[in-house]
Amino acid sequence: MSYSELIHRVAEINDVLNALSVLTWDARTQMPPAGAETRGYQLATLTDIARRLILSRELKQALEAAEREASGEPPDSIRARTLQQVREAVEVLSRIPEALMGRIAALKSTAQAAWGQARAANDFSRFRPYLEQMLELNRQLAEAIGYAEHPYDALLLQYEPGMTARGLKALLDELKSATLPMVQAIAEKEPPRWDFLTRDYPEDLQRGFALGLAQQFGYDLSRGRLDTSLHPFEISFTRQDVRITTRYRRDYLPMGLFGVLHETGHALYEQGVSPKLTRSALSTDFLGLYAVGGASFGAHESQSRLWENLVGRSLAFWRVQFPALRATFPTQLQDVDAEGFYRAVNRVTPSLIRVEADELTYNFHILLRVELELALLEGSLAVRDLPEAWNAKMRAYLGLEVPSDTLGVLQDIHWSTGYFGSFPTYTLGNLMSAQFFAAAREQVEGLEADLAQGRYTPLLQWLQNNIYQHGRRFTPQELLVRSTGSPLTLQPYLAYLREKYGALYGLGPQGA
Amino acid sequence: MSYSELIHRVAEINDVLNALSVLTWDARTQMPPAGAETRGYQLATLTDIARRLILSRELKQALEAAEREASGEPPDSIRARTLQQVREAVEVLSRIPEALMGRIAALKSTAQAAWGQARAANDFSRFRPYLEQMLELNRQLAEAIGYAEHPYDALLLQYEPGMTARGLKALLDELKSATLPMVQAIAEKEPPRWDFLTRDYPEDLQRGFALGLAQQFGYDLSRGRLDTSLHPFEISFTRQDVRITTRYRRDYLPMGLFGVLHETGHALYEQGVSPKLTRSALSTDFLGLYAVGGASFGAHESQSRLWENLVGRSLAFWRVQFPALRATFPTQLQDVDAEGFYRAVNRVTPSLIRVEADELTYNFHILLRVELELALLEGSLAVRDLPEAWNAKMRAYLGLEVPSDTLGVLQDIHWSTGYFGSFPTYTLGNLMSAQFFAAAREQVEGLEADLAQGRYTPLLQWLQNNIYQHGRRFTPQELLVRSTGSPLTLQPYLAYLREKYGALYGLGPQGA
Repeated sequence: MSYSELIHRVAEINDVLNALSVLTWDARTQMPPAGAETRGYQLATLTDIARRLILSRELKQALEAAEREASGEPPDSIRARTLQQVREAVEVLSRIPEALMGRIAALKSTAQAAWGQARAANDFSRFRPYLEQMLELNRQLAEAIGYAEHPYDALLLQYEPGMTARGLKALLDELKSATLPMVQAIAEKEPPRWDFLTRDYPEDLQRGFALGLAQQFGYDLSRGRLDTSLHPFEISFTRQDVRITTRYRRDYLPMGLFGVLHETGHALYEQGVSPKLTRSALSTDFLGLYAVGGASFGAHESQSRLWENLVGRSLAFWRVQFPALRATFPTQLQDVDAEGFYRAVNRVTPSLIRVEADELTYNFHILLRVELELALLEGSLAVRDLPEAWNAKMRAYLGLEVPSDTLGVLQDIHWSTGYFGSFPTYTLGNLMSAQFFAAAREQVEGLEADLAQGRYTPLLQWLQNNIYQHGRRFTPQELLVRSTGSPLTLQPYLAYLREKYGALYGLGPQGA
Repeated sequence: MSYSELIHRVAEINDVLNALSVLTWDARTQMPPAGAETRGYQLATLTDIARRLILSRELKQALEAAEREASGEPPDSIRARTLQQVREAVEVLSRIPEALMGRIAALKSTAQAAWGQARAANDFSRFRPYLEQMLELNRQLAEAIGYAEHPYDALLLQYEPGMTARGLKALLDELKSATLPMVQAIAEKEPPRWDFLTRDYPEDLQRGFALGLAQQFGYDLSRGRLDTSLHPFEISFTRQDVRITTRYRRDYLPMGLFGVLHETGHALYEQGVSPKLTRSALSTDFLGLYAVGGASFGAHESQSRLWENLVGRSLAFWRVQFPALRATFPTQLQDVDAEGFYRAVNRVTPSLIRVEADELTYNFHILLRVELELALLEGSLAVRDLPEAWNAKMRAYLGLEVPSDTLGVLQDIHWSTGYFGSFPTYTLGNLMSAQFFAAAREQVEGLEADLAQGRYTPLLQWLQNNIYQHGRRFTPQELLVRSTGSPLTLQPYLAYLREKYGALYGLGPQGA
């Protein structure tokens, strides 16, 4: 009885978080410009209501009673994990003072505006005081949440439960020393042709082709839709309504195309969560007050990367899909074949902007940001010295001079919106994507042949069984151990990079 | 202090009701089909949360304290009216048992589905048990809300505060005896040509032209947008975001065109509510738990009718707008002039379907429904005898034989969704539209000339000053008295109909 009372309250909180996501989707894709201010109030109020419902006396009583009932329950059963997730959200959220939440929320809107202005004016000093405050509030947030070793651990909890600063540093250092030689070796090589990617690609044809691929992957349009937005994203209001967006550049085909494949990966995860978990604490992030069904930001990103890169940027993929692409764009692609296209969309070029980076240099953009976040949080770096530190790392890792803060430290919105600790999840997603994919190749008989013939269902099935269906029932580490036999390890990702880029650029066995 | 505490809580409730409207808009225009079930949960939860917030101890305490503070406040000040609106919502909602609300909500979804099936199968008996239950629950609702004279008064309170069954019957009887002779006289006359309305009108051209007219009326697209939906509607999430929809028939121009003008009238009302009232109890229906800024359903409908019919179906309007319409559809309209077009879109034809009816016969569709609702509620008519009673009235009023329940008693969704008492507001809107319009013509110097030259700002300005800006601060009767000098009266509407249709069909001074 208490458990069903709890489940009822949890479902209601889910509804509020899902409604919040509908409002967010609408704000980013449909809302007329003047609607922004009052929409902001609506979002703030619903967030506050969700938080109050989680921290309500009624929920606490139902939780305690359900916990008493549940002793003897297997520890990873749906019931035990539900209680655990709700308990953690209640504990952590109740440790964060309402006043601090309010200050962070208020700072977010002013800091975002200041960041926008600073970026437009190429003037970091305009953003600096806001970033200083945001850093201070994140320090307070970390103290409030609590941690064993490093304040970053507390912030990571919001995005990547189970990950720590120590574990992260070890992984990233190893990644850096293993792939920096590859990047440097490739810089010496002849780049492939890619001029044809910048020809004229009408948007409606791009959309049709990309959406066709998404459907081949298994994206179910009776439970989804594709729109256009300034920044591409995937968002879910239960598994029954999972939407994606992209943006197109008429003069650069990869932007819209791989954008769709990326968001499709996220969407497949959300559409694949078991119906049993709909409106439960295992299909929504109660701690983050966010309607997301995946195990963590990193686990989610592993699926967008897997479908975008490991499938969508593979030679096998373009061998089977290129004829249809060329049929869609016959003049634009008349002088290129599948392999030439594959080479072009996998070219490695150190560049200033994270979101435009290739698979290999991308991680250095993340490395740089994580190292700087850690230094800021530890106090070994002052905000005023951040641009210089940024530029020094760009020089060290990618050999690039940063000509302006706009193209450097001011390029990402993240810090202005209060997200400290989310950057590492992009690289963690890369690592996990390779580890999951390697396991699928090992475990699913004939998978290579399936993929080579454009059959994606067996891969989707494996991912669904091993990852998607579980929603947030298992931690990312548990998912990895259960499905690949090993906790997170760098080896499958390094093997993947070495094999792929070794072949593409004619590198030696250690990728240099 | 107590008042500002109250205002803060009221703003929060507004946010929830506005969020509900976003979810409703999305469900009707964007949502993929499989999203309906979980969207239903989201809507139910947010409605329930809004109701709980209105009935919360905290709101009640803030309200009582603010009421004590406010003694001596002028009775129609914003503050006094805010307290009054919140007080009434609290009182009425607290009289409706939660169990009854739950039974009505549960019946709505099953009754709607049953209505759809009955309609498709042309079989009233499938809907009958649901309608019987819905009638019984509406009786209980009326008893719970309470009334002085007639249970219908309690139901009307939700849509048209201040209106009673007695007042309504008197108005409708007078309308019936005054306009039935006109309808009968016109039936003897030669109908105008209207074949050209059914030629091929591409949808995108219809949309562009209609939206252009909406903008000429003053619809602000930086705070609005036009979409397509199965049933046209207007919806508002504060005055900053007021959206309209329409539907097009490629082979029948008036459907989309006048649909847009109609919804634009609603939208002008919402966009015109004073910014001071944003997120207040005077821009949202707390009693109806619905984000609507107009004084009542009838007052709202008066504005859609005013812009659609009194402006948009006038000869002066088409004299100035027809050239642009013909430029948009040169071949389709090559053999017709402004006056011919005006005659065609004002032709009077008794017909079976309310939503397709002309201005003059429309009211008989309403009369019929209101008389039947009253008889059902009074117990003088049993649900099983409803189809027969419907058909008899269609014969008596419009001289039509109803060939099937699908084209008769099953045509409207209203009763299946629990709306008893909303039908009269359509005709009340017609009456008010003429009374407001006559006052504007009297009070605004040169208004005729402005309209004849396509200048709509002076009319909008008068409506804004006298009606729109006030939101729900005044009752419809107060708005009428303040701006026209008289409570609701039939005379301006009858004068309008007699003048217009007398000229169109060559009728005598009493319209017969």
